[in-house]
Amino acid sequence: MSELKGACIFGQSGGPTSVINASAAGVIQEALKQGSITAVYGAAHGIKGMLDEKFYDMSKEDPYELELLKTTPSSALGSVRYKLKKAEEDETDYKRLLEVFKKYNIRYMFYNGGNDSMDTCDKVSKYMQKAGYECRIMGVPKTIDNDLWGTDHCPGYGSAAKYIATSTMEVYHDARVYDKGMMGRNAGWLTAASALAAERGCGPDLIYLPELPFDLDRFLEKASGIYKKNNNVIVAVSEGIKDKDGKYISEYGSDLAQSKDAFGHAQLGGLASTLANIIKHKTGAKVRGIEFSLLQRCAAHIASLTDVSEAYMAGQAAVRFAVEGRTDCMVAFERAAGTEYKCNIRLINLTEVANTEKKIPREWINKEGDGLTEEFIKYAAPLIRGESRPPIENGLPRFARLKKVLATK
Amino acid sequence: MSELKGACIFGQSGGPTSVINASAAGVIQEALKQGSITAVYGAAHGIKGMLDEKFYDMSKEDPYELELLKTTPSSALGSVRYKLKKAEEDETDYKRLLEVFKKYNIRYMFYNGGNDSMDTCDKVSKYMQKAGYECRIMGVPKTIDNDLWGTDHCPGYGSAAKYIATSTMEVYHDARVYDKGMMGRNAGWLTAASALAAERGCGPDLIYLPELPFDLDRFLEKASGIYKKNNNVIVAVSEGIKDKDGKYISEYGSDLAQSKDAFGHAQLGGLASTLANIIKHKTGAKVRGIEFSLLQRCAAHIASLTDVSEAYMAGQAAVRFAVEGRTDCMVAFERAAGTEYKCNIRLINLTEVANTEKKIPREWINKEGDGLTEEFIKYAAPLIRGESRPPIENGLPRFARLKKVLATK
Repeated sequence: MSELKGACIFGQSGGPTSVINASAAGVIQEALKQGSITAVYGAAHGIKGMLDEKFYDMSKEDPYELELLKTTPSSALGSVRYKLKKAEEDETDYKRLLEVFKKYNIRYMFYNGGNDSMDTCDKVSKYMQKAGYECRIMGVPKTIDNDLWGTDHCPGYGSAAKYIATSTMEVYHDARVYDKGMMGRNAGWLTAASALAAERGCGPDLIYLPELPFDLDRFLEKASGIYKKNNNVIVAVSEGIKDKDGKYISEYGSDLAQSKDAFGHAQLGGLASTLANIIKHKTGAKVRGIEFSLLQRCAAHIASLTDVSEAYMAGQAAVRFAVEGRTDCMVAFERAAGTEYKCNIRLINLTEVANTEKKIPREWINKEGDGLTEEFIKYAAPLIRGESRPPIENGLPRFARLKKVLATK
Repeated sequence: MSELKGACIFGQSGGPTSVINASAAGVIQEALKQGSITAVYGAAHGIKGMLDEKFYDMSKEDPYELELLKTTPSSALGSVRYKLKKAEEDETDYKRLLEVFKKYNIRYMFYNGGNDSMDTCDKVSKYMQKAGYECRIMGVPKTIDNDLWGTDHCPGYGSAAKYIATSTMEVYHDARVYDKGMMGRNAGWLTAASALAAERGCGPDLIYLPELPFDLDRFLEKASGIYKKNNNVIVAVSEGIKDKDGKYISEYGSDLAQSKDAFGHAQLGGLASTLANIIKHKTGAKVRGIEFSLLQRCAAHIASLTDVSEAYMAGQAAVRFAVEGRTDCMVAFERAAGTEYKCNIRLINLTEVANTEKKIPREWINKEGDGLTEEFIKYAAPLIRGESRPPIENGLPRFARLKKVLATK
């Protein structure tokens, strides 16, 4: 493949994670090294910054601060939730992107996000091809939800899982806790991570995932039984659990209007308190609902070193493959065969990954539907290994401080 | 003072903290070394275990597990909220305690807790004196609320403050957060700790403490102003804030029945969501309420080493002073004069400390009443220094596992 000389642009999209900036470090540090890449731009708020011609010249940053990105949570460049219309329906955004790309001779685009972001990459890539503008576009996966199709796991999941498992172990020790809740949309990967705490003898008694319909009566019966026996019961539930008719349990006791986000997903929330109120009402027990909320997606102070390293590697690989001539792909992970955990990189087509959701296999959930099997533990345990921690100054983390010098033509 | 030979009993009471077990380690390890102490008992669930004659023989524990108590959160022996009646009104419990103490020749009692626990110590101590039973009783302070009178600060506060400051810095990086809430009863020490994050440039824009009346209109005006300017506003609020008429703000939008705990304190909760709903309703902004809930009191994975060491030292000092002949006191901290932080031990009478609450001085809060001054930062900064972390096994903490062998007469 012939060498393609030009600038690259990098953007972050969707909900933050503890390691999305580690991928940013991977892309930026690698791109700054590549001879074919003439400038490295960081888009402010993802695709929005590209459309608004608002991006930073990453060569102006202090190398130490770029290194600190590996342990700085959330999106250093700012994130966005912006859905591109289909080019067949409205070309405005695409024309604008082409104009900006031409103006700055942007020939590489790296985009870090989940399902929706891969869809964005895919659409831009197809349009640029059709317009005859040579440009290599690579997706770098991230989502704490771990629901991206085509990859063994997602950067961001390991650290969230480590936070959840650790906090669950700590909550377990907090004697007077009777119930708790956790976030997660339609795939239960995050809630399932609490099973890692259970494996250490400090986990929830019951775990409910959105992969299976939730039976409130059966749950109340089981929870009451355990409570009577142990005087204590800890339950982990996914925000997105539904009953057999497809109704969200969080809607049971709540009359809050359900709003929808820009991608048409219902905005879920408040299951822990809804469920806690139902249990209080039915059993009279003292119940405490705990929402891990966004703490689980930004807890860089307890990130998984495996996750951070892989997130970095994903960013780096995206740049290397693009420079070598690959485009239109997402970097994905593949677990090497053998007993020792090893994570290899593979590429998958953007079209395949966009808008497909990966759920927990049924056989990784126990028969009763209220716990995880050994297969899940084997899968998740290596992902939370290793301690990644930001440097500490006087007891608090020192996160990266970027200068954010705007790029000029 | 003459030597007093006999067994000692140790109990934990009230809400758990990250370092209550570090004090337990201090008491137990020191007591096991003392020649005058013939047996070391750990009461199951505090005063309840003493009354029920349910306590463990701590000499039967593996020394390594006792060492791990320093980094294990919550109450290893189990906690309790049990209020002793005044002896003048009902002697039953006191008579029973005397009976148990005599049966096991218990001559030392160490009790780890907050205001209410010091009140318990005080009552028991007075009764034993009146009954002519020689027994040395020492209180070891703990509470994340930091509201104990007579001590510079409380074991438990530094670690909770560190967790809050760190999590606040992380949440700050999580771009799409507009509002958050934190726990705390009537003294705002915990919420104030978010000012430590502000000092690092990653903190809340506004901080509201229960030390001052809360003006909802003024708050909405200020928050809207900051939101308009920065497109983002982070607010830290204490659970216990009230308006000028003394009404809890958490009651504003809530029709939940207010229940009371065993000590007659109103059970607060849900302020973050109440306030978030009010802001959503008034401004239309996307608001996210985050409750740190009990995560802040059990986050041993990010405990302050200063706090852990001082908690241990408090337990150890209680035993040493008692063996030397002191009784009827609580171990308290005193900051040494000078620029370098140094924490000295002093003893204060139980009667003085019980049921008095220490609030944040007015001059440590800014004029507007929505932020902290440099004095608070100077006070709190040394308390969160140093990293205490449990040993990690395959990515997760290894907490202490006690055998809990029941004591036999």
